[in-house]
Amino acid sequence: MLHLHSESTKRWLVQVDNHLDELLLDHAHCERKAASTAMNLMNAYTENLDICREMATIVEEELEHFFMVIDILKKRDIPFRRIAPGPYGRKLTALIRQNDPNRAVDRLLVASLIEARSCERFRLLADHVADREPELSAFYAGLFESEARHHTTYVKLAEHFASREMVRERLTELSKLESEIIAEGSELPRMHS
Amino acid sequence: MLHLHSESTKRWLVQVDNHLDELLLDHAHCERKAASTAMNLMNAYTENLDICREMATIVEEELEHFFMVIDILKKRDIPFRRIAPGPYGRKLTALIRQNDPNRAVDRLLVASLIEARSCERFRLLADHVADREPELSAFYAGLFESEARHHTTYVKLAEHFASREMVRERLTELSKLESEIIAEGSELPRMHS
Repeated sequence: MLHLHSESTKRWLVQVDNHLDELLLDHAHCERKAASTAMNLMNAYTENLDICREMATIVEEELEHFFMVIDILKKRDIPFRRIAPGPYGRKLTALIRQNDPNRAVDRLLVASLIEARSCERFRLLADHVADREPELSAFYAGLFESEARHHTTYVKLAEHFASREMVRERLTELSKLESEIIAEGSELPRMHS
Repeated sequence: MLHLHSESTKRWLVQVDNHLDELLLDHAHCERKAASTAMNLMNAYTENLDICREMATIVEEELEHFFMVIDILKKRDIPFRRIAPGPYGRKLTALIRQNDPNRAVDRLLVASLIEARSCERFRLLADHVADREPELSAFYAGLFESEARHHTTYVKLAEHFASREMVRERLTELSKLESEIIAEGSELPRMHS
């Protein structure tokens, strides 16, 4: 359902265990950036009111999640601060083709894959911390449904710009590349490292 | 309360009368752009959670207004489309100083002045069309309270980056320049022409 080409490995869970505070900080920024991406797509394809409506919903949900993570940071006495982004978003964005309608398809599919990977990792995280951090586990278990829904929304919207077959084919290509990028990882402990 | 240096003139109301459809289209885009500006400010000054919270509220309100205008366009059989922006936003943005904290102050104050001018014009429009377009008049009368509130929010947030006196002084300067820009107008019939 998530169209991911690979599953996250234990390497990431080791990073999580060693740097949970930094991961939570990154998660807050991920939610903010997801809202911002949806806003940018609404600006870019504003003539399309379907896109406007779906993007507005995603903006609101991601902003709500942002403040939920902010509350968790506060409860855990982790001061909110800016942190260097990992390379995942930059590497994925570099795969976006330059001219519309291909550009539109790719922007939507890259967004769909980020949501898919977040979904997969939220579920993994919910299981991984279930015994020692039941509250955090419940929080992540509560988030992955919306990430899965956002994934589906983005894939469906891509069909405004190309046939279903072309979208599926490009999604498969991009998903393979995404799995290579996620396998490369990053020394920075991040939601997508 | 709005810190505007001038009142809108009859020239604009003549444009409104001659191009109400285009003005409504521009208004929809203004609401979307206002949401986008707030999102950008949240990204730029994300360490400041006061700014994040206020910007998130403004994003949600502006997106709600956007869809209200979309509904009005639909009722009036005006197809939603992209239109060329007038020069107002570009000219105001050019006044923003380059380096923080001045840049932060100016971005917030420019946003505050756009909200103030929208507020002034919404009220003017509500009165101007009251007899022949009571529904539209009520819509604009319902919007200007939130625009006034956003104006105040932006001015207050600027005080995170400079003393109250410096903010007031710069607001006076920018307001004078804004009144020059609005006096220049534009041949394109727009909310801020």
